[in-house]
Amino acid sequence: MNKPLRIGILGGGQLGRMLLQSAANYNVETFVLESGKNPPASSLCHHFIEGDINNYESVYNFGKKVDVLTIDIEHVNLDALFKLEEEGIKIFPRPRTLKIIKDKGLQKEFYKKHHIPTPHFHLINQRKELQKHLSFFPVAQKLRSGGYDGKGVEILRAEKDIQNAFDAPSIIESLVDIQKEISVIVAKNETGKETVYPPVEMVFDNRYHLVDYLVSPADIDESLALKAQEIALDVMNAFDSPGIFAVEMFIDSNNNILVNETAPRTHNSGHQSIEGNYCSQYDMQMRVLQGLPLGDTSITKPSLMLNLIGEPNYAGPVKYEGLEEAMLLKDVYIHIYGKHETRPGKKMGHVTIVGKKKTELLEKAKTIKQLIRVIS
Amino acid sequence: MNKPLRIGILGGGQLGRMLLQSAANYNVETFVLESGKNPPASSLCHHFIEGDINNYESVYNFGKKVDVLTIDIEHVNLDALFKLEEEGIKIFPRPRTLKIIKDKGLQKEFYKKHHIPTPHFHLINQRKELQKHLSFFPVAQKLRSGGYDGKGVEILRAEKDIQNAFDAPSIIESLVDIQKEISVIVAKNETGKETVYPPVEMVFDNRYHLVDYLVSPADIDESLALKAQEIALDVMNAFDSPGIFAVEMFIDSNNNILVNETAPRTHNSGHQSIEGNYCSQYDMQMRVLQGLPLGDTSITKPSLMLNLIGEPNYAGPVKYEGLEEAMLLKDVYIHIYGKHETRPGKKMGHVTIVGKKKTELLEKAKTIKQLIRVIS
Repeated sequence: MNKPLRIGILGGGQLGRMLLQSAANYNVETFVLESGKNPPASSLCHHFIEGDINNYESVYNFGKKVDVLTIDIEHVNLDALFKLEEEGIKIFPRPRTLKIIKDKGLQKEFYKKHHIPTPHFHLINQRKELQKHLSFFPVAQKLRSGGYDGKGVEILRAEKDIQNAFDAPSIIESLVDIQKEISVIVAKNETGKETVYPPVEMVFDNRYHLVDYLVSPADIDESLALKAQEIALDVMNAFDSPGIFAVEMFIDSNNNILVNETAPRTHNSGHQSIEGNYCSQYDMQMRVLQGLPLGDTSITKPSLMLNLIGEPNYAGPVKYEGLEEAMLLKDVYIHIYGKHETRPGKKMGHVTIVGKKKTELLEKAKTIKQLIRVIS
Repeated sequence: MNKPLRIGILGGGQLGRMLLQSAANYNVETFVLESGKNPPASSLCHHFIEGDINNYESVYNFGKKVDVLTIDIEHVNLDALFKLEEEGIKIFPRPRTLKIIKDKGLQKEFYKKHHIPTPHFHLINQRKELQKHLSFFPVAQKLRSGGYDGKGVEILRAEKDIQNAFDAPSIIESLVDIQKEISVIVAKNETGKETVYPPVEMVFDNRYHLVDYLVSPADIDESLALKAQEIALDVMNAFDSPGIFAVEMFIDSNNNILVNETAPRTHNSGHQSIEGNYCSQYDMQMRVLQGLPLGDTSITKPSLMLNLIGEPNYAGPVKYEGLEEAMLLKDVYIHIYGKHETRPGKKMGHVTIVGKKKTELLEKAKTIKQLIRVIS
């Protein structure tokens, strides 16, 4: 470690911001590419470059400034990444992995090819093709690309729902009788060393298809937890790329585990690791990027992470209500992402609660949800 | 909380840097004033202003940009702070408290006035006055102002040592038969709410009079720990200022506790709180600055903090050896301060180890000290 390693982050959102909080523990020089004047990560890096992460030139020129590149979001220009990789820039996750994951169709086919359990699916290109899959209904239709945070998903239960369907390349997936949704974060460094976090349990906000809160560890049998960790490692190994991956899974009513999707990066379902695990997902990513030994994924104490989401009917410069009252409760950690504007359903921050028991965590979360409001 | 609170930090060293890592969890806009192009805190704030923290104009103009001011170091222009406070800028610690603490002579007289136990002392203005205090020898002579990190201290055992003494306003303090050195961090917010951390034990590096390592919690009787916490609270209450304070104390061979000195800010002796306590000293400072409820000072797990100090005989662009090997050990947290140049005895970073037992922590610390070298 002579000259500080130059680390570039494509995207300047909250994941980049939290990564930079960890980056400040290391001998690194940090670069962020994002459009807009003040994205969340822009004030915590050495070099903020305003530019479009989907533009070939912007990404290529940015990549040439650094030793290693990573992402805050999948929606980045892939051609530039392939070129940069050819020219010797390290990119974690690798562009070929990103290419598969960015396209939910390729991602699903990849699972099938690698015998990763996943809900049955078909690929379609246009809405009218849905007619020939009626026997496969009810389904979740998901856009092959461009979806995020629950956007780009439509539930189609019967023929009459086809009018609401996307008329675009998409997958249709058989609906799972979901018992629980869990997520397992895995990481691998360049030398092939790998590690896996204990599963967390995600509870969704049905208004926005966003994680409402998650509980760590997931309240599931140990054998199921081990199985989930095994599957997550299988997924990462199939992708064959250094990096950090969040593998989201369904547990169905028969205790089958099915992979829903994988994020090739830190993830909302790992935020609790900052206070709840020995090594946070962000510190883990820093270790991966620097080729350092991986950290300890063990849980320090049970935790619950609650997303702070913009309230319905409010859009504009953000105001936070009730933070102070929430902080009067013990062992409540506030994370505000520094976004200037709120809108309904926008992720504006999160709260992590640590404690001894799940019941205690749930109780406190309920109180906090009543206290904190993200409005304008 | 509407517009982000504007927080200014005078000084851009590692304490400011770690404060900014915590600041990124809140809805704040951060400002740093420091000389030099790239001090440790400069890359983690919204606004870095290059300027002299000892210059009236620089500090005054900087202070006018913010809602609340704090410090990374005591050596700042006080006149500007008094003026700013008059004009309604919140300053934690208050300038009148800082004025007392900055001058070790005033600080000692303050302890005496407020019946805070502290080693006996005399004030002198010139070296030649030492002759009339020979019966008080052996003493530690400390410069009244300008000393830091063990600089500005001279041990005078006998008359012949007077030739090495400082010829400047200083205190001479009777040498304590030190059994242990401990530190207790206390915090108070504007509403008068106060809290206290468990004592930590400091072991010094005799080459540089710097903390070599510290162990949390201090290995002392509970009654002594409670007494130390009580004294630290007394000190803070006597100072009558919101803020965070590190009260360094000696425990003598008769188990008397004597206050050595107080830092009116976060402190080296609180670095372990990032991983080893529910609320870190930096998060606590953020709460104080924002007028938020204070955090939980409890220990999450025993910890040991080891300073990473520039090796003797190396000066110039820094290189770190052995970090990777150290990180192969479990539950070792690296904190590099991002300073470009090393020199003998310069604080370049620290390592925190968490674990179950003091013996285990000491063992690991010994290994790490052999592994990591800060050279050029």
